Amino acid sequence: MEKQNILELIEQKKYIQLKKELSEMNEVDISEIIEPLDLPTTLLVFRMLSKGIAAEVFSYFSAEQQADIMNTITDKELKFILDELFFDDMIDLIEEMPANVVNKILINSTQEERVLINQFLKYPAQSAGSIMTIEYVELKKNMSVKEALEHIKEIGLNKETIYTCYVTDKKRKLEGIVSLRNLVVSEFEQSINDIMLEEVIYVETHDDQEIIANIFKKYGFMALPVVDKEHRLTGIITFDDIMDVMEEEATEDFQRMAAMVPSDEAYLDSSVITLAKQRIPWLMILMIGATVTGGIIKKFEDILSTVVVLTAFIPMLMDTGGNSGNQSSTLIIRGLATGEVVLKDIWRVLWKEFRISLLVGISLATVNFAKNMLLDRLELMVSLTVSLTVIIAVILAKIFGGTLPLIAKKLKLDPAIMAGPLITTIVDALTLLVYFGIASAILIK
Amino acid sequence: MEKQNILELIEQKKYIQLKKELSEMNEVDISEIIEPLDLPTTLLVFRMLSKGIAAEVFSYFSAEQQADIMNTITDKELKFILDELFFDDMIDLIEEMPANVVNKILINSTQEERVLINQFLKYPAQSAGSIMTIEYVELKKNMSVKEALEHIKEIGLNKETIYTCYVTDKKRKLEGIVSLRNLVVSEFEQSINDIMLEEVIYVETHDDQEIIANIFKKYGFMALPVVDKEHRLTGIITFDDIMDVMEEEATEDFQRMAAMVPSDEAYLDSSVITLAKQRIPWLMILMIGATVTGGIIKKFEDILSTVVVLTAFIPMLMDTGGNSGNQSSTLIIRGLATGEVVLKDIWRVLWKEFRISLLVGISLATVNFAKNMLLDRLELMVSLTVSLTVIIAVILAKIFGGTLPLIAKKLKLDPAIMAGPLITTIVDALTLLVYFGIASAILIK
Repeated sequence: MEKQNILELIEQKKYIQLKKELSEMNEVDISEIIEPLDLPTTLLVFRMLSKGIAAEVFSYFSAEQQADIMNTITDKELKFILDELFFDDMIDLIEEMPANVVNKILINSTQEERVLINQFLKYPAQSAGSIMTIEYVELKKNMSVKEALEHIKEIGLNKETIYTCYVTDKKRKLEGIVSLRNLVVSEFEQSINDIMLEEVIYVETHDDQEIIANIFKKYGFMALPVVDKEHRLTGIITFDDIMDVMEEEATEDFQRMAAMVPSDEAYLDSSVITLAKQRIPWLMILMIGATVTGGIIKKFEDILSTVVVLTAFIPMLMDTGGNSGNQSSTLIIRGLATGEVVLKDIWRVLWKEFRISLLVGISLATVNFAKNMLLDRLELMVSLTVSLTVIIAVILAKIFGGTLPLIAKKLKLDPAIMAGPLITTIVDALTLLVYFGIASAILIK
Repeated sequence: MEKQNILELIEQKKYIQLKKELSEMNEVDISEIIEPLDLPTTLLVFRMLSKGIAAEVFSYFSAEQQADIMNTITDKELKFILDELFFDDMIDLIEEMPANVVNKILINSTQEERVLINQFLKYPAQSAGSIMTIEYVELKKNMSVKEALEHIKEIGLNKETIYTCYVTDKKRKLEGIVSLRNLVVSEFEQSINDIMLEEVIYVETHDDQEIIANIFKKYGFMALPVVDKEHRLTGIITFDDIMDVMEEEATEDFQRMAAMVPSDEAYLDSSVITLAKQRIPWLMILMIGATVTGGIIKKFEDILSTVVVLTAFIPMLMDTGGNSGNQSSTLIIRGLATGEVVLKDIWRVLWKEFRISLLVGISLATVNFAKNMLLDRLELMVSLTVSLTVIIAVILAKIFGGTLPLIAKKLKLDPAIMAGPLITTIVDALTLLVYFGIASAILIK
């Protein structure tokens, strides 16, 4: 059903047909269509949805819209939604709502739920605990396949996934997993104990989401169990939440690498002030850092005024150094994020970047030399000074670019801060020192 | 089972225990452990694995290792592996193997398989066709739930996923989907027609993988059907392959944004020459571009020799402009990749970036002015020239940085090329023009 048709049905008040069409649609699409409408209309459509669908549509609304709806609907309706929401969505909701709405939620929860909510709110941001959900299927070793399937049939609709089931003992310790595929292809009389997989890959509640994302990518899992320190099953993480994590982590790295304070708020939804605040700190630091480079120029003013043409190459040398360093640091930062490069590779990276920088530096310097001699008809010694600086600038840039992210990792800093902008500032200063050093040696007798 | 223990069992030739331990392990881990061993040992362990496991372990080996193994094993063993490989892994294999191995594969395929292989090899790289697989569960409308479950029980182990099943008509046109969850919670006598979902979201064989990845992220699907122009089902794409796509697409953007020719080869596995070739072209272009900036300096040599102190601010102005532009272009490029920003947002972006740049520019200029006046005790007019240039440079940088990626998209170019390095080169030239323009007006009477 097209968006336009739905809007027409709403306008023409053809509610019976509208309800039928909505029941066939995907929840994400429904929320996308009704979110921009005014609140009374949104509520009108929202109330036509079946309970389960309504809760899911609700979970896709923006925080603002969610707060508006929760402030408007009756307590009974609220309770319906809360009952149907998956626990991880409920936690996300509580974290984003203003205090009065949170109160409304807590009043409408059971004592048991409140204890759980409290426990979940305590997990560190970006940890397994903060992204897991508790709606999983739990089986026991001594069940038969038939009993397990009957159990799933009964409870399956309220679980986040039923495709991986978790076998636990009396103390809720994780003993194994069984996929629904295995259940479906097995004979009814087989026991869970016979078909379950005991060597389970799991994570702990405090593990970082980036590590977890890498496990998902490595193994292609659909879900991963989360255990506490006593190996008790406390939740599961499903692949769809991990896709969000992957996107979020990549976006964070992009932002950090472009010298911004990372934020997971969408660009178009962020206020100008928020975005400016995200950008000013690093620009300020880098601006002040760049005055060091200015100081170097000041120190060598004599050379520049003797051989005036040298000034014209400053931008090219700075850019080439910066760009070369940016290439290397980007590859290493990305390699560290995907787990393809690890700390102990530092010497391999250093040696590799050194050889690459020789090739790259000599290629660039040769073209530069040819251009300076043939096109611009510069003096041989000036051309030599510039080309030699290109080579050394590229080598320095690639060595700093390749190793600084690894050193940051070693120091437990985020490698992404050692990206282009910072490397550029460092390499700029070094490049000019080299440039004026060579110029002093070759040109000033 | 720890890696060390497996290696010990191999060394001590405890093959019976080894076989048992391997049967409990994840295929990814097995391939990781045995890949580094010498070929005879790898083959020895490989032959202990059951047919299905062996094929999966095989699919995780490097291309080199795969070629070695296929050159060594018997035709009968080869046929076993090929039979068990999922079709998308088989296509990947054929694309990467040297000609003699491809021949060996084709000789061991049926006529029907060869036709399919040919068809699949023709799909464009990074299209739905190139990442889909053909091992899906097909159901018919008139089946009962019981019949469907029996059908799945029979064939389920050989399918990439059984969790979403596809309902097709006699001409293989896609009519609907049924999740295994729905099958398991429904009554045996219900018909597929009653429980299937007819409003199916699908992609076509030539759709681009980035768009497909965004659909997966938006809806949280586990699998997506791929149809041809006649709406016939030709394959499915599963979430695990999409996780690889997401990682690959992000890495490609990182590389392009750092002025590299993108490559999906791993950094540590790439040769120095390959890596240098990836990096030289853009560095060369940018280096030549930067000579324009040099030319501007040359043109204004008079001003620089009159007010010598101006030279010292060139690095700071260039870096600040470049960094500011880099921030904006990064946010927009990333927004375009995740689908959060679209082409028609261009005026919103422009207006937003303009306001942000005012805030950012004025903040930076103020700090700069204070530093120049109080710390460096520069002349008022020089300080004013520098600070004014900072503001204008930031505005230009953010406007170019914010809009150039959108313009690239509009021109059907990859927005990621409009990243920091290129913006920096453009903004550098503009910044210096502004700088010298203001200096001429204010300082030279």
